Amino acid sequence: MKFRRSERLIDMTNYLLDHPRQLVPLTFFAERYESAKSSISEDLAIVKETFEQQGIGTLQTVPGAAGGVKFLVQISEEKARPFVKELCDLIATPDRLLPGGYLYLTDILGDPQIVQKAGRIIASAYSEAKIDVVMTVATKGIPLAYAVASQLNAPVVIVRRDSKVTEGPTVSINYVSGSTKRIQTMVLSKRSLTEGSRVLIVDDFMKAGGTVIGMISLLEEFNGTVAGIAVLVEAEKIEERLVDNYLSLVQLSDVDLKEKKINVKEGNFFTLNQ
Amino acid sequence: MKFRRSERLIDMTNYLLDHPRQLVPLTFFAERYESAKSSISEDLAIVKETFEQQGIGTLQTVPGAAGGVKFLVQISEEKARPFVKELCDLIATPDRLLPGGYLYLTDILGDPQIVQKAGRIIASAYSEAKIDVVMTVATKGIPLAYAVASQLNAPVVIVRRDSKVTEGPTVSINYVSGSTKRIQTMVLSKRSLTEGSRVLIVDDFMKAGGTVIGMISLLEEFNGTVAGIAVLVEAEKIEERLVDNYLSLVQLSDVDLKEKKINVKEGNFFTLNQ
Repeated sequence: MKFRRSERLIDMTNYLLDHPRQLVPLTFFAERYESAKSSISEDLAIVKETFEQQGIGTLQTVPGAAGGVKFLVQISEEKARPFVKELCDLIATPDRLLPGGYLYLTDILGDPQIVQKAGRIIASAYSEAKIDVVMTVATKGIPLAYAVASQLNAPVVIVRRDSKVTEGPTVSINYVSGSTKRIQTMVLSKRSLTEGSRVLIVDDFMKAGGTVIGMISLLEEFNGTVAGIAVLVEAEKIEERLVDNYLSLVQLSDVDLKEKKINVKEGNFFTLNQ
Repeated sequence: MKFRRSERLIDMTNYLLDHPRQLVPLTFFAERYESAKSSISEDLAIVKETFEQQGIGTLQTVPGAAGGVKFLVQISEEKARPFVKELCDLIATPDRLLPGGYLYLTDILGDPQIVQKAGRIIASAYSEAKIDVVMTVATKGIPLAYAVASQLNAPVVIVRRDSKVTEGPTVSINYVSGSTKRIQTMVLSKRSLTEGSRVLIVDDFMKAGGTVIGMISLLEEFNGTVAGIAVLVEAEKIEERLVDNYLSLVQLSDVDLKEKKINVKEGNFFTLNQ
């Protein structure tokens, strides 16, 4: 069946959005739509232009016989900033404060739309980086890790606090929690991480960073390297931050448990990711 | 800025895919693209036709002043069946068998592409149903639950085995595991589920169904109703299945631990979801 241009553009858009960071040969589209490669090239130019204009992402063209086109998510600052602002307002409601200075984020993390948008923004910072795997720790970081990983065409590896029969053989490490100074355990299925992987660590919340340090020690057991660290929310006024290079979308400040007040501001994402 | 039709179609496709089950007024698009409503209607007709032809989904038109258009995911059987077949082949590798007849699925559940496709297929069965919330239990069911929920425009609620400080006040129940007959506990944050919600239960794996029964008891504590039950993989030859109405994409049969053999076939999805 031959496709009209309008149909090709719609299906192509869907296909490309669905296959981020995957090289799609022009012949694939030419055969799919029974169209000349020259028409496909014209189509792709329109898609690229619209994606860029609308702050969705871009298409990268790889020339040559083994070439093709690759969709990279790149949410524009113009689109990302208002979303982060909304997120800040959402987090700033006083009834989120829980005993111990923890924050109730379950409703926010339970909203797939919010998580997907946050994931796309974070993924934008790594869309051209070499990432083999996205790593997170059970449970709260999982949805965000998937949202990021799906945009980077990378698998997700989930670190656990305890080992389960369905994981097969595991590797475990002990680490010291940054804020409570307690010794804790982390476990990762042996099969789940390939030796020497480049790992992007994603989590929902970071206080001193002990959990992230734990994940780093764990991935070192697999001879992995840290390709990046990104969190949705970071707590502020940490005297001794254990982690240096990380991105955050939102930063807490002046958490006042007595007065039930939190100030919430933009994280370091827009400053660092230029 | 005025948009050409080709640009409108690309951006519209992205927007609609990103906002499933949300009513978008025609005026929204008319203003976004500075175009006449009649042009928008023509665009939407082309999008609808292409989505249907390509087995992506459909657009539902709601007439009247408060009307608009809604994208519903509806993966065609033609597209879903080959995917499920591939999934079966992937699961049928003998080295997945773990002690106790459990199956190593971590790599499959760790692949966002697979999880998203499975999620879209499951969501297709409920795209016109009234679903307020998708419920799952930590940890393995979480990615699939999000994949389903994101297509149904519903939040995800995660049941845990133990309560955590970051959850605030919780409700807990005890239930009997279907296969091991052990008493276990499930916990849900009080704030996370609104009274009287219609709940779609999603999980990665079902043996006798004890976990699902546990989730049902728990949601009854919130006066919720079960709107559906869907699992990725169901174990076969369960003498006493505790749950009756459920959808499964994949079914195991003849798991032979000694010979390290598993037979894997299509679940009941295509039979029940006609």
